Order: sequence, then C-alpha cells, then structure tokens
Amino acid sequence: MKAVIKAVLGGTVASPEGFFAGAVSAGINERAAGKLDLAVLSSETPCVAVGLFTTSKLKSAPVQLTRHRLEKGRAGAVAVNSGCANAFTGEHGLVDAAEMASLVAEGIGIDPEEVLVASTGTIGMPLPMKRIRPAVEQIIMSRDGGHDLAKAMMTTDTLPKETAVSVKTGSSEFTIGGAAKGSGMIHPDMATLLCFLTTDAPVERNFLREALKRAVDLSFNMISVDGDTSPSDTVLLLANGMAGGEPITAESPQADAFRQALEQVCIYLAKLIAADGEGATRLIEATVDGAADLSQARQAARAVISSALVKAAIHGADPNWGRVVAAVGRSGADMVEDRIDLYLGDVQVIGAGRHLNSGKREINKLLKGKEVNLRVNINLGEGSATAWGCDLSEEYVAINSEYMT
Amino acid sequence: MKAVIKAVLGGTVASPEGFFAGAVSAGINERAAGKLDLAVLSSETPCVAVGLFTTSKLKSAPVQLTRHRLEKGRAGAVAVNSGCANAFTGEHGLVDAAEMASLVAEGIGIDPEEVLVASTGTIGMPLPMKRIRPAVEQIIMSRDGGHDLAKAMMTTDTLPKETAVSVKTGSSEFTIGGAAKGSGMIHPDMATLLCFLTTDAPVERNFLREALKRAVDLSFNMISVDGDTSPSDTVLLLANGMAGGEPITAESPQADAFRQALEQVCIYLAKLIAADGEGATRLIEATVDGAADLSQARQAARAVISSALVKAAIHGADPNWGRVVAAVGRSGADMVEDRIDLYLGDVQVIGAGRHLNSGKREINKLLKGKEVNLRVNINLGEGSATAWGCDLSEEYVAINSEYMT
Repeated sequence: MKAVIKAVLGGTVASPEGFFAGAVSAGINERAAGKLDLAVLSSETPCVAVGLFTTSKLKSAPVQLTRHRLEKGRAGAVAVNSGCANAFTGEHGLVDAAEMASLVAEGIGIDPEEVLVASTGTIGMPLPMKRIRPAVEQIIMSRDGGHDLAKAMMTTDTLPKETAVSVKTGSSEFTIGGAAKGSGMIHPDMATLLCFLTTDAPVERNFLREALKRAVDLSFNMISVDGDTSPSDTVLLLANGMAGGEPITAESPQADAFRQALEQVCIYLAKLIAADGEGATRLIEATVDGAADLSQARQAARAVISSALVKAAIHGADPNWGRVVAAVGRSGADMVEDRIDLYLGDVQVIGAGRHLNSGKREINKLLKGKEVNLRVNINLGEGSATAWGCDLSEEYVAINSEYMT
Repeated sequence: MKAVIKAVLGGTVASPEGFFAGAVSAGINERAAGKLDLAVLSSETPCVAVGLFTTSKLKSAPVQLTRHRLEKGRAGAVAVNSGCANAFTGEHGLVDAAEMASLVAEGIGIDPEEVLVASTGTIGMPLPMKRIRPAVEQIIMSRDGGHDLAKAMMTTDTLPKETAVSVKTGSSEFTIGGAAKGSGMIHPDMATLLCFLTTDAPVERNFLREALKRAVDLSFNMISVDGDTSPSDTVLLLANGMAGGEPITAESPQADAFRQALEQVCIYLAKLIAADGEGATRLIEATVDGAADLSQARQAARAVISSALVKAAIHGADPNWGRVVAAVGRSGADMVEDRIDLYLGDVQVIGAGRHLNSGKREINKLLKGKEVNLRVNINLGEGSATAWGCDLSEEYVAINSEYMT
C-alpha cells in the first residue's frame, strides 16, 4: 500500500495523540545549575512497549529495572534524568531507580510497574534522591512538553534531538515521534545512549519489537562517535493505539509504511547524534557498496566512520584517501585492492585501486562542508550499507579530559 | 636452567654478533628533508628468519613480498624506509619493493631472495625510486649503525626505540636486540607497525616462530594508541647463530631463557611505542587480574587502554573511575559489579564495587605521573593480563589532521 510520510513541523516525542511530557531543573549536576535535567513522558492510555538495551556487561540500574518491567510489554510513562547515570551504583542504585519510578507513578496516578526509567550522566555516583523527590512534584505535563523533555536528556549534547512524522496509508493515519540524546560513548551496537520513540498507531507487540530491531540496526547501530559503549544505552518504543483501528501486525497492509516511517525517524535522530558527537564539526556519511554481503558492508562502513585516522583527516580537510581504504581493509570485509572505487560526494578519487587526479579545488570544498559523503565500492558483491560518524577534533579531548574535575 | 638477563648499555638491533646496520637520508618525504629515512640491517652469515604481519585485508607491497620470501625461512638482510608505506600501490608497488630489495642485495652481495623489505609512511603513494636508487649506494654498514637504523624507521615517533639484552644460561651466552617504530595506527592485533629483532643465538626455526608468537602476544598485541591497524604491520626475527652451539629447540635447556629474554625485549619496545603514541603525554598500564580466563583478561585489559574516554580522562588527570569499570563491562569479559576492585598504583579506589574515599592528594599525584598504573581485580577466576596505552591529547588530533596537507 502506498504511504505518504511527512515531517511534522516542530515535531517532538509528544506529537503522537495522547502523549504528554514535562521537565524541570532538579539540580542533579551541581555544575549545571538551572539546566532542565528531569523529565517525564506519559501516555493517556496504556501503551504496548518494547525496548533495546546496552550490550555491556555493566548495566545501569535503570537499564536493569526497565528491562525487567518490559517483560510484561506494557508501559504508561518514562522518567528520565541527566547529570547522573545511576550506573555502577549497586543495589542502592536499583532502589533509587525504583523510587524515581514510584514518585512519577504517584504523580500521574498509574501502577509503578508501568513506569520505565532511564538515566544518563556520570557513572559511579548515586542519584541525588533528595533533589529528585521534590522536583518530580513540580513537573507539569502537557502536550507541548516534548521539547523540554529533549532538553532535559542532554549532557554534552549541544542541541536537543527530536522529530516526528505523520503517516497516511490507505484509510490509516498515525504519527511517530522521537527524542534522543547522544554525544559521547556513541558506538555500535546500541550506540544511542537514550532514545524514546512514541506512536499513536495501534501495533501488535511482536511486530513492534521486530520493527524496532530493524530500524535500530539501520540507524543507531550504524553510528559511532568514540568507540565506547555506555552501561545506560536504551531505546524505548511506546505505542498507545490512540489513532484507532486494528493493531498493525507484520501481515497488515500498513506494516511497510510503519516500518519505513520508524526507520526514517531513527535515521534522522541517529544522524543528529553523529553530527553532534563530542567536539564534532562535520558529519561523516560512509556508504559501502559492492561488499560480499550485507554483514561485510556494515562492518566496512562502520570501520570507516570509526577510524580515528579517517576522523582526524576529515577534521583537517586532509585528502588522505589511503586511510579510508586501510579502514575497509582492516574491517575484515573481503576486498581486492585493484577493484576499489572511492567517491567523495560526486567526485571519484580512486578508480580500480588507483588514485585519480580529480579536481583539487572541488575536493577541498567538499571536505570543508558540514557533511562529508564518502562512498566506497568494493565491486565484489551486492552488500550495501551506510554508517554515520563525525570528525575527531581537539575539542573532543578537551570535553572528555575535564568531565568530572 | 637459571638465566641471567642483562640490558646491554646502548644496545641496538645490531648488538648481537655479526649484525650490521646503516642508514641515509634519501629524501623520500619532501617535507622531512635531511631526516634519515632509508636503512639496511644485515648479517654476516645467513639467518633463520620468521615474521608476523598485519591482519588487515589491505597488505602493503613490502608485507606481501616479505611474507612470501619468509616461506623459505632464511634471510640475510632487511631494507626499510619511512616516509612512504608503499601500500595500496598495486602491482607497481610490488615491483618497487622487489627492486629495493635487489639494490640492497647487490650492495651486500647476497641473493635478492634473502633480502626482506619493510616500509612505513603515507598510504597510497608510490615509492620514489628515483631517490631510493642512488641513496642505497651511499649506505655504509657498520656494527654501530643500529641507532641510525632506529632513527630512519621513525615517522611521527618522537624517539627512536631500540634495546638489547645479553643472556647467560649454563655455558651458553647470546644477545637479543631489537628496533621498533610505532606512534600512530597502533592497535592489537599486530600493533607494531615495524619491529626488527635479531639474535646471535642458534635457534631452530619452529621454536623461533613459537617464541616470537608468544612474545608478540604479550607485548605488541597488548598495546593500543588509536584503534587503527596498519597495512604495513611487520615483526621480523632473525637468528644468525654466531654465538655458537647447537640450535635451541623447545626442548633445549636454554629454551626458557631465550623465551624470557625475547619477551623482555618485546615488552620493552611495546611500552616505548605506547608511551610515544601520537600526542601522548602519559603511559597507561592496565593489569586485569581475577578474570574468568586468560582470554577474557586480555580482552578486558585491552578495552581499558583502548577506551577513548579513559584515555581522555587520564590526559586530564580526571579520577573518573566509572569509565574504567565501564570499559571492562563492555569488553565482553564476565564481571559482577559488586566484586570489582580497582587500584591506582598502590591506592585502592574501588572495593567490592564501591567507590572508596581514598586520599585525593595522593590520587592526583599518581594521575599526573608519566606512567599511570591501573589494576582491576574482577575476582572471578585466575585470568591475568597487562596492556599498555597512552592518554588522548589535543595533540593527537593536531598531528593527524595535518599529516598530508
């Protein structure tokens, strides 16, 4: 079935019908006084909910609690804070995460088991519950609160990351919204740190999980800022069904439109995260075509955007193409030296393994843009994938050498 | 059998009996005029020779040629240059590498098939043979030439890296020498870029290969500067037998002493490489004890010294211990949060998963030293390993964003 997918002007995670959000400044990080740092997302009606979490053996208390609560597949609200990750905080951390959920549940008037939690910030410090308790009471929930929620999630992010799309397919109309935070510790897999996705579409749980997995594989699992993975990585997707109609399943005529719209939202947010990597000045998009298979294409694309040498070269607008080919070479993907083609934007710089004398002025201009597009064709098979990263700047180091002190 | 292993004062790769070295400035990189950049290592008598090479699918021409020549297990000389890696240079690169070997063979008067080659520098540029041809003739070989060879291998290295040890065990006496270059693109596995090892001990080939593999696993495979792997990574070990006696095999009474001395040389050079990482101001040594097994200990130790966040925190002398634990957590090694102990030097900063209130002044002093020692005890098993890295500084970015331009 044909679908029309449109960006919602000023869209947020609370754009879909029945979602509300609100945020306050609880003063969780003393060094960021006045910053919004505690937020709640809620739905008027209970949602079908699914999530994906960090692959690290060290899982934050909120990740442990939320994973457990999602086993029932239902949720009514999400509580989120920045400034403290509540990770590596032992049993006490679990108690704090559960209390944060209970406080929100009381405020909204739902079962505490239906409140999910997420935290981001410094690892190894307890949540300052003394500041969180009074702050929760001050949160005012509204249909316009999405933007504040996106701001409250930010740590070293320089911009809030949010979007929404409306979808029309056949007689169905629904909306998908999302908010994310990234910046440091961004790496496949589960490179998000935090992302909340909402929809008013009615969706069956198995299909919701399958669609989320696929969208995350194409988006948050294809970005890298610094090669680190966080104990807090969390992607949640809540569907409240308020757009009406029968639940969408894998066999529904609306299934493709839902998948496509969800991917669009996730890729949009993932690119924002990559572009806003700590210290980043440029977004790098690397597409690998002609790999032996999809998995090798993914490996190779991620190796290119993860290479510290490629990232530093692009920061300096340095046309060091050998580093791009070397990254593909060490990725493990099959390659034959004299088949490699490399394009910068529309300019071919390597053909059949040889450096071409392409226009230096054009290359210099492309390398100095806000978005640098690299495309490698391995010319061996049909595997194709795209990954996103950012340049490596002196600023990355400055941010991360002074985070705590 | 007991062994006495002593560092040789001013030891070089040419310290073992019968080895000679020499270097010239060939002007391979126009921007480094006058720098020694072309060198030869040779032995008076043919050597038993073994090597280990990059795991990247993109292998430089010298790596392809040298791997092939080592199948016979014999070598008489090594030619090396910096300024140009002769990688991603196609068939023409192979012809150039072979010519470089032949020029050296002619000068020394040995079979070209017994000359190995190694190149380091920019990827994707052809070797300037016009400058190399006349320069080879000017190389003067001497017993004192080892230091010049180590200098000629340098690219962004700030110091030459070389050492030698003398070994006495029973009635046997022999020497092992080595020279290495590192700096950028240093990462397990085969993180060396280039390392040449020599010995006058008589060693049987299978044992020589086994001893090299083990020593490299404990040294060059346990360091990381930037997560990148080079198409040029090469470790060569040449044994000319001039110390006399029966060839050492795995069963010989001297086998342990040989292994131990070789490990000592490799670890010494690996630590020099880590400490001299591009832009580095501090060496980071991370030991992981109590891992479920050796392989998990290795994984975890490497994750700690590879983490951009840990590296940046140590650059800023920032006591952000959560990042160290997070690196262990994402390494894939089994861990239980409330068993983790962490030490900085002799100061315990985490005990059974809890931050301890250790002396801030002492910690600050230790974090500002030239060498920062971290020790994590996972308290689960017997696996133990040590890895070395360096801090991540603004200077790393400056070096790598302006390498070519």
